[in-house]
This record gives sequence, structure tokens and C-alpha cells, in this order.
Amino acid sequence: MSSAGYDPNNIFAKILRGEIPSHRVYEDDAVVAFMDVMPQSTGHTLVVPKTPSRNLLDAEPETFGRLFAAVQKVARAAQQAFDADGIVISQFNEAPAGQTVFHLHVHIVPRFEGVAPKGHAAVMEKPEVLAANAEKIRAALAGA
Amino acid sequence: MSSAGYDPNNIFAKILRGEIPSHRVYEDDAVVAFMDVMPQSTGHTLVVPKTPSRNLLDAEPETFGRLFAAVQKVARAAQQAFDADGIVISQFNEAPAGQTVFHLHVHIVPRFEGVAPKGHAAVMEKPEVLAANAEKIRAALAGA
Repeated sequence: MSSAGYDPNNIFAKILRGEIPSHRVYEDDAVVAFMDVMPQSTGHTLVVPKTPSRNLLDAEPETFGRLFAAVQKVARAAQQAFDADGIVISQFNEAPAGQTVFHLHVHIVPRFEGVAPKGHAAVMEKPEVLAANAEKIRAALAGA
Repeated sequence: MSSAGYDPNNIFAKILRGEIPSHRVYEDDAVVAFMDVMPQSTGHTLVVPKTPSRNLLDAEPETFGRLFAAVQKVARAAQQAFDADGIVISQFNEAPAGQTVFHLHVHIVPRFEGVAPKGHAAVMEKPEVLAANAEKIRAALAGA
């Protein structure tokens, strides 16, 4: 397995630093959550810890409590916001497993009866759709 | 989304209680890890918290720190044991998202360059193969 270390110029590090815009839905002192720009389904959101690591394999174990508490919070909000029938949580380690950005991130993919999810990192969504979906998740979080 | 609550007679609850055998690779006071009997790839392992919940959505957030620390430990051991090129971590919430057993569990699926994973919960593996793979993971954990 490749383990080329952590590159602080990966795109999620730039998003965390505010150098690249994102459709943020949630932030606390441990994580930021924002819309995946190439969603596998409506409401596909990413949760990213602020502490840098390449993926789950090299992360400090102390990262996981706050990270997955935020994943739960955002997953519940996405379920409510889109009336999803299910939620897939996934996390990819290294390119052969589907990892495309080398800063630890967790995918929250709402699933709907009879709707197959799209491929991972396949088609760019329109910014206005992402903005509207982010607003729905923020509203669900505010109402929780 | 269905949320029919927690059934203490689900198969993972029975495995946790020792009423059904499993190929265990790891246990601590918070989790048990054992081989998936219908693996998507060589070394497919499940990590299950001892605290009951239906899935990630209704779990106590306090569960996640210990759960994912164990996921990391077993994922690293599986990577080493099978010389995997990558590791997919996934967790399914409700049947439309692929959940088949309604006790929170996390999948660790080793991935290998050029080998497509099998379908989820598709084909039963031979017990002797599961036993041999479990032994490899235990050996990697012991050497870690």
C-alpha cells in the first residue's frame, strides 16, 4: 500500500483553510462538513477532521470520537432534509480503494428506494443545486 | 426511513453473546471483530460495538471513539496480513442502504489492484478459508 504521507496542499486542506470555497453545512472545533461537488446521490456530504492525516489508517485514534459524532449529526440531518430511505457511510483508504483526495474524509451518501447511486467522483453537480441542498441540511441541523 | 428499533435477537447480538460461533480476530471491552461470512474480498472483517444500537443513526455518540479506534487497528492488521493495496471502510444504515443485520457494524474491506470486490452479502465463504484469514489478522495484530 502506498503511504506517501500528507500533502498540505490537497484540496480539502485548502477548503479547511478557506482558500477554496465550499458549500459548508456544519463546523465545530474538530471538523468541517460540506457538500461533495461530485455527489453519488442527492445530499452527498463529506465530513473532514481539521487535524491532518492522509486517511483513517494514519490518523490519531483520538480524532475518531469527534469525527463520527459529527458524521452522525450530519447523517441524521441529511436523512431528514431529503427524506432518505437509508444512509451509506463510507471512507476510502488509498487510490485502489477509491480515495481521490488524501486528507481523511467520511462520505455520507443518502440512499433512496429504487434509485441506484452514481459512481464515485464522476459528474460535477451544478453549484446552485449544491447550494440548495446545503441549505436544506443546515435547516435540518438548526431544527434538530 | 424505517426505524423499527433494536431487536436483541439479531445475529450479531447472538455472536456477541457467544450463542453463535464466529471467526473472531479482536476483542476489547467495547467491541468484537470477526470475519464476514459472505466476504466482498479476502479479509473482509466486521467490527461490532458491544453497546446495542440499530445502526449509526441511533447509536450513543460516545460509542464512536472506541469503535473506530478498533476499526483502525483491525484495518491496519488486515492491510498487513493480506498485503492489501487499499481498504474500504463502510457502514450501512437501513435496508435501502444495504444494511442486512440491525446491530451497528463497520465493514473493513481490503482492496487489491485489478480485483473488483464481490457484491455485499452475496456468497458464503468456506469456514476453513475464514479460519485461515482470521489467523492471519490475529498474527498481524499480535505483531503490531
